Formats: sequence, structure tokens, C-alpha cells
Amino acid sequence: MAGNTIGKILTLTSFGESHGKGVGGVLDGFPAGIPIDTNFIGIQLQKRRSGGKAGTSARNEADQVEFLSGLSQGKSTGAPIAFWLANQDVNHTSFQEGVFKPSHAAYTYWRKYGFFDYDGGGRASARETAVRVVGGALAQLLLLREKVTVHAYTRQVGSVRLETDYQEIHLEKIGQNSLFCPDEECNRRMEEYLMRIQAENNSCGAVVGCVATNVPYGLGEPVYNKLHADLAQAVMGINAAKGFEMGAGFRAAGMNGSDYNDLFSANHRLQSNRDGGIQGGISNGENICFSVAFKPVPGIMRPQESCNEKGGEVWLQPSGRNDCCVVPRVIPVVEAMAALVLADHLLMYKTYQNYSYQQ
Amino acid sequence: MAGNTIGKILTLTSFGESHGKGVGGVLDGFPAGIPIDTNFIGIQLQKRRSGGKAGTSARNEADQVEFLSGLSQGKSTGAPIAFWLANQDVNHTSFQEGVFKPSHAAYTYWRKYGFFDYDGGGRASARETAVRVVGGALAQLLLLREKVTVHAYTRQVGSVRLETDYQEIHLEKIGQNSLFCPDEECNRRMEEYLMRIQAENNSCGAVVGCVATNVPYGLGEPVYNKLHADLAQAVMGINAAKGFEMGAGFRAAGMNGSDYNDLFSANHRLQSNRDGGIQGGISNGENICFSVAFKPVPGIMRPQESCNEKGGEVWLQPSGRNDCCVVPRVIPVVEAMAALVLADHLLMYKTYQNYSYQQ
Amino acid sequence: MAGNTIGKILTLTSFGESHGKGVGGVLDGFPAGIPIDTNFIGIQLQKRRSGGKAGTSARNEADQVEFLSGLSQGKSTGAPIAFWLANQDVNHTSFQEGVFKPSHAAYTYWRKYGFFDYDGGGRASARETAVRVVGGALAQLLLLREKVTVHAYTRQVGSVRLETDYQEIHLEKIGQNSLFCPDEECNRRMEEYLMRIQAENNSCGAVVGCVATNVPYGLGEPVYNKLHADLAQAVMGINAAKGFEMGAGFRAAGMNGSDYNDLFSANHRLQSNRDGGIQGGISNGENICFSVAFKPVPGIMRPQESCNEKGGEVWLQPSGRNDCCVVPRVIPVVEAMAALVLADHLLMYKTYQNYSYQQ
Amino acid sequence: MAGNTIGKILTLTSFGESHGKGVGGVLDGFPAGIPIDTNFIGIQLQKRRSGGKAGTSARNEADQVEFLSGLSQGKSTGAPIAFWLANQDVNHTSFQEGVFKPSHAAYTYWRKYGFFDYDGGGRASARETAVRVVGGALAQLLLLREKVTVHAYTRQVGSVRLETDYQEIHLEKIGQNSLFCPDEECNRRMEEYLMRIQAENNSCGAVVGCVATNVPYGLGEPVYNKLHADLAQAVMGINAAKGFEMGAGFRAAGMNGSDYNDLFSANHRLQSNRDGGIQGGISNGENICFSVAFKPVPGIMRPQESCNEKGGEVWLQPSGRNDCCVVPRVIPVVEAMAALVLADHLLMYKTYQNYSYQQ
Repeated sequence: MAGNTIGKILTLTSFGESHGKGVGGVLDGFPAGIPIDTNFIGIQLQKRRSGGKAGTSARNEADQVEFLSGLSQGKSTGAPIAFWLANQDVNHTSFQEGVFKPSHAAYTYWRKYGFFDYDGGGRASARETAVRVVGGALAQLLLLREKVTVHAYTRQVGSVRLETDYQEIHLEKIGQNSLFCPDEECNRRMEEYLMRIQAENNSCGAVVGCVATNVPYGLGEPVYNKLHADLAQAVMGINAAKGFEMGAGFRAAGMNGSDYNDLFSANHRLQSNRDGGIQGGISNGENICFSVAFKPVPGIMRPQESCNEKGGEVWLQPSGRNDCCVVPRVIPVVEAMAALVLADHLLMYKTYQNYSYQQ
Repeated sequence: MAGNTIGKILTLTSFGESHGKGVGGVLDGFPAGIPIDTNFIGIQLQKRRSGGKAGTSARNEADQVEFLSGLSQGKSTGAPIAFWLANQDVNHTSFQEGVFKPSHAAYTYWRKYGFFDYDGGGRASARETAVRVVGGALAQLLLLREKVTVHAYTRQVGSVRLETDYQEIHLEKIGQNSLFCPDEECNRRMEEYLMRIQAENNSCGAVVGCVATNVPYGLGEPVYNKLHADLAQAVMGINAAKGFEMGAGFRAAGMNGSDYNDLFSANHRLQSNRDGGIQGGISNGENICFSVAFKPVPGIMRPQESCNEKGGEVWLQPSGRNDCCVVPRVIPVVEAMAALVLADHLLMYKTYQNYSYQQ
Repeated sequence: MAGNTIGKILTLTSFGESHGKGVGGVLDGFPAGIPIDTNFIGIQLQKRRSGGKAGTSARNEADQVEFLSGLSQGKSTGAPIAFWLANQDVNHTSFQEGVFKPSHAAYTYWRKYGFFDYDGGGRASARETAVRVVGGALAQLLLLREKVTVHAYTRQVGSVRLETDYQEIHLEKIGQNSLFCPDEECNRRMEEYLMRIQAENNSCGAVVGCVATNVPYGLGEPVYNKLHADLAQAVMGINAAKGFEMGAGFRAAGMNGSDYNDLFSANHRLQSNRDGGIQGGISNGENICFSVAFKPVPGIMRPQESCNEKGGEVWLQPSGRNDCCVVPRVIPVVEAMAALVLADHLLMYKTYQNYSYQQ
Repeated sequence: MAGNTIGKILTLTSFGESHGKGVGGVLDGFPAGIPIDTNFIGIQLQKRRSGGKAGTSARNEADQVEFLSGLSQGKSTGAPIAFWLANQDVNHTSFQEGVFKPSHAAYTYWRKYGFFDYDGGGRASARETAVRVVGGALAQLLLLREKVTVHAYTRQVGSVRLETDYQEIHLEKIGQNSLFCPDEECNRRMEEYLMRIQAENNSCGAVVGCVATNVPYGLGEPVYNKLHADLAQAVMGINAAKGFEMGAGFRAAGMNGSDYNDLFSANHRLQSNRDGGIQGGISNGENICFSVAFKPVPGIMRPQESCNEKGGEVWLQPSGRNDCCVVPRVIPVVEAMAALVLADHLLMYKTYQNYSYQQ
């Protein structure tokens, strides 16, 4: 397995298994002198924890992050920041040994490595996303130095959909509602939906939106590392992600140029932001807005037709503890991946920020 | 500008401007001994050429690729394969000097580099995609050695949509229709739509689907370089791409697990392929299916409210030659980006293919 | 600080400070199914420990490695292998606060990051090399699968030099002598030299040789990633390394081609190995032989003219615990760096091993 | 073949064969707005050309560089800079078909790729170094913006050695002498030596020194990408390089700390520069000084014992045109590789230059 590192200048390397000793990460390329607000990191981890919220499982990890290196007196020193989250609440009945959970990584891991960790799912478990949250929170602290903020929120849970557009969302309301939907009434309907799904021993999909504010213009490398291309890669790497769209996204496909284009006002201000803050792969100073679609969590509390390792048909019996939807726990994970990409591009931009053709 | 190289083992480096001397690329990491069928490369370039098709501009480049290195007697030698496409039909009226085209890269380039190439668009022009097509065609020739094929097709043009699912498409019909829509009747309606849009001096968006067949299981690194994450990055880097979805994509967000999951039949065969051939970031042996959404081409033949470099409000007058839709010319570009990612992951997989936990 | 990851396919990421909680690493890209002989890893760590040997300091770390992830039942699973070595014997008097140790990293760190960790040296301490030893030992276990072995040995300590050529060294004798010099008599003289240097409160330099056997032909990318270029980078990254030579090295500069060239015998066997097993950047099937020069350890137990942070002239008073020579402790570190490079190139070679122009 | 790209932020990708159409390169990550003095590039190429100088072959390439992209009105635009050097004076008798030249890349290429380009040597020919010279000259122009200069010079040719130390060299004298040795008398003896070697149909090795001035402190990533580690990789990748040393290099191995250490004077000035301008992998503001050893050019005008592809013993007959020593033509190549590394690290340093622990 390669590919446990993301980023070019600011790199996060992840390790650990769901039911092993713990999970951890190493953030390298992080500048010296950034104040590390551990409260903020704790808040992001808290958002990711399950704990009685609608749709979440009974696994209850303290998610106490221990920093192993890279900090001194509350600031980054420039050295790689390593951190560790010990596993505590481990339940050894998550998987039926030797039987593949449908639409899950179990089968593909087993084919590729000759190994799948039926005791917890190993690297395929969403437990790994705790690493992303810590790494992403550190990236957010770096971004905050430049006033950049990142906010993910719930746009859709199963068939319940928030119809409000990016532009009209009150970012400060996101955190007030249990499922991180900025509309209280919609949040309530989502909660009901999730409870019904859970009662039916089923699971459901979701769409998460994300808005980054105060992003300076100039981030993004405009051919193969367009800012939105790197964002797409980062968020599509989250477990269960099946779709990504920037700004108007798939809706743009049905529009005409005369309706779509973001026209200019005086002083390079835009009259609209259908492009989602990125043009030609480079941030244009507007808010950066994207969405991610997640499929239903594959683990459901019903028997499913499956195979064992030898290829024999068997029924997979329900077991383990599963969230029935990636929302709400995926919210800080989306923020984390966005922050890692934005911070990496921010540092990259500094390599030529002082140079200009017009000098 | 960094980010003109894509891939990890098989790397394509791109250079050249729309109205400069030409565009070219270097494909490194390509194995020795692969027969290079220049006919096939010509066919892919031909698909990308405009030439009287509905919705395409009048620019008429011969797109004769010249190989500069890396081949001997019709086979790859293992050395980097460099190639060059000279620009011939250059028209110096594409852009209004000093006025930004709305929803286009002109403004962000100018802010970032202090430079925008108003004479043709430079790196921001879709002319660069010819490089992708050649690099991608070479990757396809490598994939063909393992019987893997890649087929992109048109799913939507503006409001005209192909309703057929991935699974039911006849791949061999794609090439028979002018806009690469596998349904003849739908292709005809798309053509009419494009002609109307063009007559209205407007542009429109599109959705392109892509299917890769005979992909062996095991491709993809399951955490940050999931196969679909790298596909997302590669295709979102195509000009005007605004959305990506894998398998059922955004539709999955509205489904329940019991309806969504791809159940197993005997011998690890799947009863459905809603996941689009990838589970846990690793190919599972099924066809790989994804879609890309493109926004309307930003250049339209109407005056638009804009700004000049000083921020003054001016109207951008229509000029230059623009396709009114990325379809049909983007079809081989999507194939190219998919092939580059699949070939790169195929080579990566070989690094540990002979090792297995069960030995 | 970036640059805490080495390798392209097999990557080692390092973290931790000398007098912090500990040091650790993450080895990614390691194939599944490799038996992990922890005894062997312990032996390599034991070689790196100080402990009463001539020239070594009094710091006595147990160097018990704890594996945090990536192993199951004594084999690698394909997941990233993370490991941790807790610091135990920490002595807080290594550095004089605010005064720069001459020819040491203290000043350059302080200028670059605004921070130097006077309590132990942080990342600049040779404590970090324990991470390399563990990562390298894992790489050696992978290489052993292909029968490749890596042996470093002492060629020179201060003015005492082993005159034997690479070819005539008995590799099995290296481990029998305290300073890893394969010649018992020479080893004894080196010991005496080190004891004298230590008694004089001084330090001295050294040269370490390294031989890799059974290396298959074909490793190395022949332009910018020549096998010996990557070896040079890896071993020059060891603390205090100041020189690298491949095969005959600097001696080759004084030779003529007719004396130097490795002539062929029948069946592509070579009559000599002055090139050190690599030609054109690619291994040729002979033993791979190189040497590394190390400067004297900068810390000596004498007062030295120095500066404080404000630039004022002050004398640095002797303090802390220093080895007086990198030998013998650097021996397993050189082996580690060589093994990491060879294993990485071995995996890279597999990406095109099955392809050939002659097929 | 991978590994035709060097650098992390500023990347040079190289392509082309010795007797193919030409050789070329793509420099990506180069900032916008740098004036491109093509005279300077021509001077560097001119240094690399053979042309009647002692020890050089009769091949006479105009080495006219053609820029294909990335420049506008004499300045870089930020886009990748591609360039091309057409081959003109191609002689098809360089190699004896099917017989391996001893100590040359022919055999290892043939084993690895199943292909060796006996017509000119393909990628293994020093013709590729013209690409490095152009890329490096561009890097030098970037460095000049920060007043950094790079000077290589000849330290040794066969048994003739310049005994002057780095510190005492008059850099401006280097270019006044035919073999780039800053001492006129020594240069004359080197010339005589080369003419004798050539008359004897033999070849000889050499040592090249390099000094970079005005290098700001802070360049280099202090663990695996120490500045001198990256320099070592870059220059060891030059054809025929067999050794690298930083500052005092191998001589340091025989010294004691009390004689070696670079003591401080007031204001952080150093009293000596035995470390060669880098401590702990980071530049310290002093001149950066290193040396490279080259083996004798493998091609000599005498019959040599060799093998054919089937392994049969045959004598290789002398043929082709060979320099008898890498000096003087390698001088601008060493400068190029040093400049590429320094410029890359300069850009990298900018990513965290504005951050400091002490803020």
C-alpha cells in the first residue's frame, strides 16, 4: 500500500488500523511559529466523534490526541508534527470473518494484499479519518493566520435536501444544529429521516457542502494541479465519497453561457459565484464552494447476499457497529481535506508570489 | 506555474501555448517494447479536432504529431517519449486585449503571474488538451497490452440528456455518431440543440461518461490515492470541468444501503455495479464507470459586462473562435486522462503484485 | 521543515526529537506478506546503541522499538508500518542555552526557523538515525527476499586506515570486531586511536565502506535518478557526512581509461569492479560498493570560540555527552540508507520488468 | 525509464537521444517576470561545446537552443519553459553494433530495456547534458535575481592537480583559461597532460570544484533533503561522476574536531569554511563549495576485451568520437546541476520564509 501521504509541500502521512493500537499521522512542511490551539483541534475531533447523535454508532472513542513531536511551548517549531490517537473502545465483532461485506473494501483489499483485517477493517475503516481531522485542523490553524476559514455543512441526507444555495447560507448557523445543516427546520427533518433509516436497519447517502472564506486569489496550479482538481482528489479520497462538484457543478451542465458566466462589476468584483471561487484552476478571491456526494454506508443491519474467500455464496449476517450515514461525522473530515489542500497551495503560491511579469 | 506534470510512475509533462509555436509533451516511465500504433494516436487526435461538427469553431489545426524521442522501429525504447504539435492555424483576434473574459482563466492568470496571453490564451486554452490526447493515447496503447480499453461518450448536452445507464450502453456505437452519444436518436437531438445554441450566439454545458473495460482488480492505493480520487483529480483538471461522479455518484446520496449495495453472486461476481468498479479505492474487476460535468464554454458571441486590468467597467465584445460546447471535442481528452491514471496505477500495482500476505 | 520523507515508492517518513517523547517513523509502500524478523531489527538497533564501546557517549537508550501498525502475525499486511522508540535516558545538559556549537546545525536551524532545541538538539541530533535504522532494517528484510544483503564496515578512523580493497574484504568478519572493521589488527589500532582522541577531549572523522551483494541487474533510472545518485543523496543525508564515492571514486580521477575500465569476460562477467557495480546509473549484477566520509563530530570537550544569538563573542563550554567519532554507531545507519534506496529501486524496477524492447 | 525529471518545485524534465532528432527539456515551476538573457545561455552552451580544445572530440554541434514556450518579450511568463536543441553533426559510427563498450552504460541498458542505441548511445550519451546546461542556465538567471552566482572549475586532470584551496581561488580567472583551471600554469600542465593522453589513445579522469557565492542562509531541508544531499544527487547524476565531497570532504575524515570546526567570530561570521557553507543540511551564508570526481571516459581508441549480446568474447574495436576527459566540457554541466538544486531550494525556502518561531 502506497498513497498514505497527501500533499506536495505540506504533507500528511497517515498510519494505524481501526482495531489496532491506534491511528496517527505526521504533518511535514508545516512552518515554524504557528500557535497550536489544541482546543480547536479538540473541537474538530469532537465533531467527528459519535455519541448519541442520530445515525451514529455506539463506538465511543475519547479521541484524545497526543502530540509526539514538532511543538514547543504551544507553537510549531518547524519540525514534523506527529500525533497519535490510541484506540480504546475496540469491539471485535465488526466483521464476519472470511465473508465480504458488499460494496465495501473488504473484497478488494483481500484480492490485492491477500489480507483483510476482519477485526475492525484496518485501514479501510473510517477510524482513519480521525488522522485527517487532526492534520486538517493543524492546516486550518495555518490558514487562520491568513484569515482563511473552512466550513462544511450538510446539504442532503437521503431524500431530505437543503435547497438553499451556497451564497445564502449563514455559516455561523451550521454548528448550532445537530447534523450541521444550517437550516434548523431542515436539520430536524434530516434527523427524523436518519432515525427512521436506523430503525429500518438500513443506511443512507448524503451530500456535504463546503465553503472557504477569505481565500486569497492566486492559489492553484492551472494545468494538472488546478485548485479544484486537487480538492476533488482530496475529498474523493474520503471513505464512501462518490461525487464532487465545484460551484454550480452538475447543474452547470444544463445551463447556457449567458446564464452561467460570472460577470464582472467594477474593480474586478464578481456579480455571482457560479464558478465557486476558482477560474482556470486558480482562486479568484471569492468564496470557494464545493459539494461531495457520499453513498450509503455499506454496512447495514440486515443479512445480505455475499461470498466467502473461496467464492462460495453465503449470507453476510449483520454485526458490528455502524453509523447509518456518513453525516454528521464526516463534516470535520471534509473540512480537514479542504484545509490541507488550501494550505498546501498557499505555501506553493509563496514560491513565486514575489515575482511578476510586470516588474 | 508548477503542476504541468501528472502521474507518479508514468508521468506526462506538458508545455506550449495556444498561439505560440506549438504544444508538446514528455511521457516518462513508459516501459520499453510497447508497439506504438501511430494510427491510433491519429484517430484520437482526429476526434479532438474541430472540423465542421456541430458546435465546433473554425480553427483547423492539422494536429500532426511529431515524435521527438523515445521510439525506435515502431516500439518504445524505454526512454522518455517527447512529442510536438506545431501550431498552424493561428488567429490573433481571440481575445480583446486587456479585458477579462468572464468565467475564464484570464483574470486569475493576470492576478497570479502579472501576465495573460491575450493572443490565444496561452496555457489556459483548450489547445493544451491536444498534449493530453497524445499522452493518453500512448497510455491506452500500454493498457491495451493488458486488454484494458477506455471509452468516453456524451451523456448530456445542455438540456438534452441520455437516460441510458452505464451498463446498457453499446460501446461500439459511440464512435458511429457525430457527438459520440451511443444513442443515435439522442445524438441527433443533441446536434439540433447545439446548432440552436450556436445560432443564438450562446454556449452550453455537457456531461461526459466514461467506461473502462477489462480493468484488472487491484489498481488503486486505498487511502489518499484511491483510484477514483486520482481519476477525479485527472479529469477535474480538464478545462471547464465542474463535477465528477463515480458509478451512481450524486444519485447514491439519495439511496438506501439496501438498494445501493452491489451484492455478490458466486465466485465473487457482482449482481450490479453501482460502485462503478471501485471499492475502497481499489478496482474490483468490474467495468470502471464515471462521469464528468462541464460548464458552458465561457466564450460567447455576445457582449458581456466585464472589467479591464485597471478594474474599470467595460463591455467585452465578442471575438475569436469558440466552440459553443466542450462536446464533442472533449471526448478523447476524457479518455486520455482516464488512461493516464489507469496506466500509472497499473505500473504501481506491479511493484507489489508478486507479494501477498498469504504466502 | 519539509524533507522528512525519503523514497519514491517505498517511503520512510521520520519524526521526533532527541529529548522529546521519542522518535518514530512510517514506512509506506512496503509489500504485504514479508516476514518481519524483529530479532534482526533489534540487532541493527543494538549496533547503533552506544554502550561502552570506544568513542561512544554515556547515553544509554534501550531502543526498544514498538510497532504501531502494519503488521499482523509476524508479517507485513501491506498497510503503512509505523514504529516508535521512546526516549528514556534524557540528559538536559547537552547544549549551552543560546550559544551555538561550532560546525553544528544549531546556528542554521536558529536562523531558518527562529528556533533551536538546545535541550538535546531536536531534529539535528543523531538520535533521529534510530528511525533510519528501523526503516532500513525493514527494507533489508524485503531485500533478503531477493537474497540481497547490505554490509557497512569501517575503512578509516582519523588517521588509521584500512588499506584492503572492497573486493578482498571478508564480509563475515565485519561483525566480529568492535568497530566493524573487517581486519582485526586494524580494528585494534582504530580502538586505540579513538581512546586517545577521547582522552584528549577531541573528536575525529571516519570513512565507512558499504557492500551490497546479490543485487540483480537493472536497478536504477539512468538519467537523474541513477542508482548511485540516489545512494549519494541518501547517505549524504546522514549527520556529519561530507563525502561519497562509488567504486574507485576519487581515485578514478587519477587513472587512465586503459587501467580503469572493467573489461568483460565471457557471459558478461566482469574482470574487475572499479565501477562499484553500477554503470550508466544501472546495477550490472556485480557487488555494489561505495564509501562515505564523515567529518569529526562537532561537539568536543574543550572550550571553543563561538557566538550567542545576538552575535556576541562567547566561549562555548564543553557539556553534554558526545561520541567522539561517528564510528561505530553510524555503521547500521549507512546500511539502512543503502537498503532503503536499493529496495525502492527494486520496487520501481518491477514496474517495467516484464516489458522489453525485444519482445 | 523513469527519473528524467529532477527537482521538487523547480523541475527540469529531459528528453531526446544523442543521434536522434535532438535533445530538449521542460523547466516547470519557474516564476514569471525573470528576464531571460539568451546570451548567458549561449555562453554556457558554448563552454560545453567541443571545438578544438585539448581532449575534446571532433563532434561539432551548433547547440543553438530554440525556446518552444514559456517566454514573452524576453521574460518568463510563469508557463513551463520548453527548449530544443536539434542534432546536426551526427556520426553513425560511434558504437560497434552488438558489442558492449566496457565500463559504459551499453550493457546495463541492454539488460534492463532489451535495447541499447548503438547509434550514438541514446540517453546514455553526454549529449543529454546540453539539456542540463540550458535548464541550469535558466536557474542561474533566477539565482542572479538574488545575487547568487555559481562557478565550477577544474581541480584535477589525471595526475595533474591544483593544490589551491577553495577559499583562495580567484573566480574571475576561471574563464580565462582553456580548461577552466583558475591557475594559468596548472592549466597549461593539464593541457599537456590531456594531449599526451589523447596521443596515447587513452582517456583520463578529473576532479571539478564548484563555488556558489552570496547564497542566503536557510536553504536546505535538514533531514533527508539536506542541501548537500540534494547537491550530491544532482551532480552524481552527471555521466562518469564517481565521487562527491562537500567542503573538506574526504580530508575531513582524517582530521580532529579541534582542527576542523569552523569557529565563530563576532556577528555569526565564521573564521573558516571547512564545512563548505552548509551545516546541518542548511546553508549558513558562507560560500558553498563542493567537488566532484569523474572517472576516465570509458571510450578509448584502443581495442578492449568485451562481450557481444550473446555473451561471446569479442574485442571491441575503437570507433566513434570521444573526448578523452570530461574536462573541460563538463564544467557548465556541474554549474547547471548546482544551480538547479540551489534555485529549487530557494523557492522551497520561500514557503516558510515569512514564518518564524520567534514571532
